[in-house]
This record gives sequence, C-alpha cells and structure tokens, in this order.
Amino acid sequence: MKPQLFVLSLILSVPAFSLVSLSQNLPDSKQAIETVIRQQQDAWNHADLEAFMSGYWNSPDLTFFSGWHESKGWQAALDRYKKSYQGAGHEMGKLEFSNLRIEMLGPESAFVRGEFHLTMSDGKTPHGLFTLIFRKFPEGWKIVHDHSAGE
Amino acid sequence: MKPQLFVLSLILSVPAFSLVSLSQNLPDSKQAIETVIRQQQDAWNHADLEAFMSGYWNSPDLTFFSGWHESKGWQAALDRYKKSYQGAGHEMGKLEFSNLRIEMLGPESAFVRGEFHLTMSDGKTPHGLFTLIFRKFPEGWKIVHDHSAGE
Repeated sequence: MKPQLFVLSLILSVPAFSLVSLSQNLPDSKQAIETVIRQQQDAWNHADLEAFMSGYWNSPDLTFFSGWHESKGWQAALDRYKKSYQGAGHEMGKLEFSNLRIEMLGPESAFVRGEFHLTMSDGKTPHGLFTLIFRKFPEGWKIVHDHSAGE
Repeated sequence: MKPQLFVLSLILSVPAFSLVSLSQNLPDSKQAIETVIRQQQDAWNHADLEAFMSGYWNSPDLTFFSGWHESKGWQAALDRYKKSYQGAGHEMGKLEFSNLRIEMLGPESAFVRGEFHLTMSDGKTPHGLFTLIFRKFPEGWKIVHDHSAGE
C-alpha cells in the first residue's frame, strides 16, 4: 500500500471505527444500566439498603428531587431510607420498577424514565414516576440524579 | 516529514483534537442551554406559549412527567398549556426559573436541575423542582424530557 493510500484509509477508518465502537457498546450499556436497576429492586426486596444504595453515585454531589424537596449526598440518602423504611413502625414493602425506558445520551451517560410501585402489608400502594440520570464510572454505571414523585 | 511520522502525528492528533473541541464547546453549550431556558421564561411572561414551547423538541416523543401524570408529544403539551393557563378563568402568572444547574453529559446532551416559581394575581405561588434533559439538534438545544413537580 502506498503511504498516501494508507493515510487516506486511516482518515476514513477513524470515524467509522468510533461509530461502530459506540453502536456496539450501546446495547451493552443499556443492559448494564438495566442490571443496576434490577439489582436495586432485588436489594430493596431483600431489605438490603446498602446494596440498594450501591446503584447510586457514592458522592456528596448525588442529588434527589422528590416533590418540592431536594436532598443531596449518598450517606444522607442511605440514612433517610433507613429511617423511613426500617425505623420503628415502618416497613419496606415490595418494590417493583416497570415501564423502564433507557435512553443513551452518549457513550458514558444515559437517562431512564420509569415507574415505581410499592406494595405495603396494609394494602397501600405508593407509586409514581422517576427520571434517573446515569453516568459511567470506572466502577460501573451509577445514578447521579434521581427525580421521583408520586402518590 | 516522512510518511510514517505523518501517520503517527495523524493518529495522535485525532483524539487531541476531539478533546480540545469538546472542552472548547462546553461553555458555549451551557450558555446556549441557559439562553433557551431564559427565552422560555421571557416567552411565558409575555404570554407567548408558542415561543415558550419552542424550547421543547417538536416531536410526538417529547415526554413530561408531573407527579404521577405522564404525557407525551409537543402539540399535546402546547394544547394543555393553553387550556390550563389561557383558558377562561385562568391566568399565566409571572414565571421565574432559579437555581439553574446545567451539567453536560456529552457534547450533544445535558441535564438541568432547577426551580420554578409562579406568582399569580391572587397571591398564590405555585413552585417546584424540575429536571430537564436537553439534546442538541441541527436547529439548536431542545428539551426532550421534562420532569416537574411541586406544590
């Protein structure tokens, strides 16, 4: 191959490679994100809040929006979940996520739309919608922002 | 320059160029996104719902989450806003967005956290939090998903 041709093929191959690489990774990324969410559901239903929280970015900059209330930080979220669902007179209920729509926003970011349904022993069924922002970290896909609201 | 050296410099220059290009574009992108949001605020306060809606992706796949309610589509959103804020006995109030936090998720995607405050003539002040997903289209940055909730 002449050097000029080699250079030309290199120029042509760079964007093509990037596109193929991205499109090949997307189904894997979506699968990895769905796995995080499913593991959270399982962890909740095994009353393992630490495992549930492992789906979230372990950072003081993690944010939660719920109705008018904004809260910040991984540790504060874990403490709040423990108080609200494992404190005296509280129960975790059975959690189910449904209607998940995972949409990639780049090779290392995505957002997820979905519904949560809790079934409590007294027959109450708190439920609502959520928007999650995921980012890919060296340790895997993590939620960096959670906007949940419902009844 | 020897062909081999030229090829090497080409290989090295491709990712370097991409990184520089990305970092140079980020402040511009944030500025462009903030401009879209500020233009929406101004449009609302001039009772121009079509201009307000121009910040949203004009697609049937645009989604809105509000409390437990999910709705879809640009036209349906415009119709809903017209009915809720310009119908008989309704008013638009004065809209203010605050505490905007624009975070890039890639060169062509971002999410925005913020607060909305409406001031109505009867003294009521509906307000709440929102999460917006932005994507860059040939015609500019547009909201593709809006999760808003409040009181």
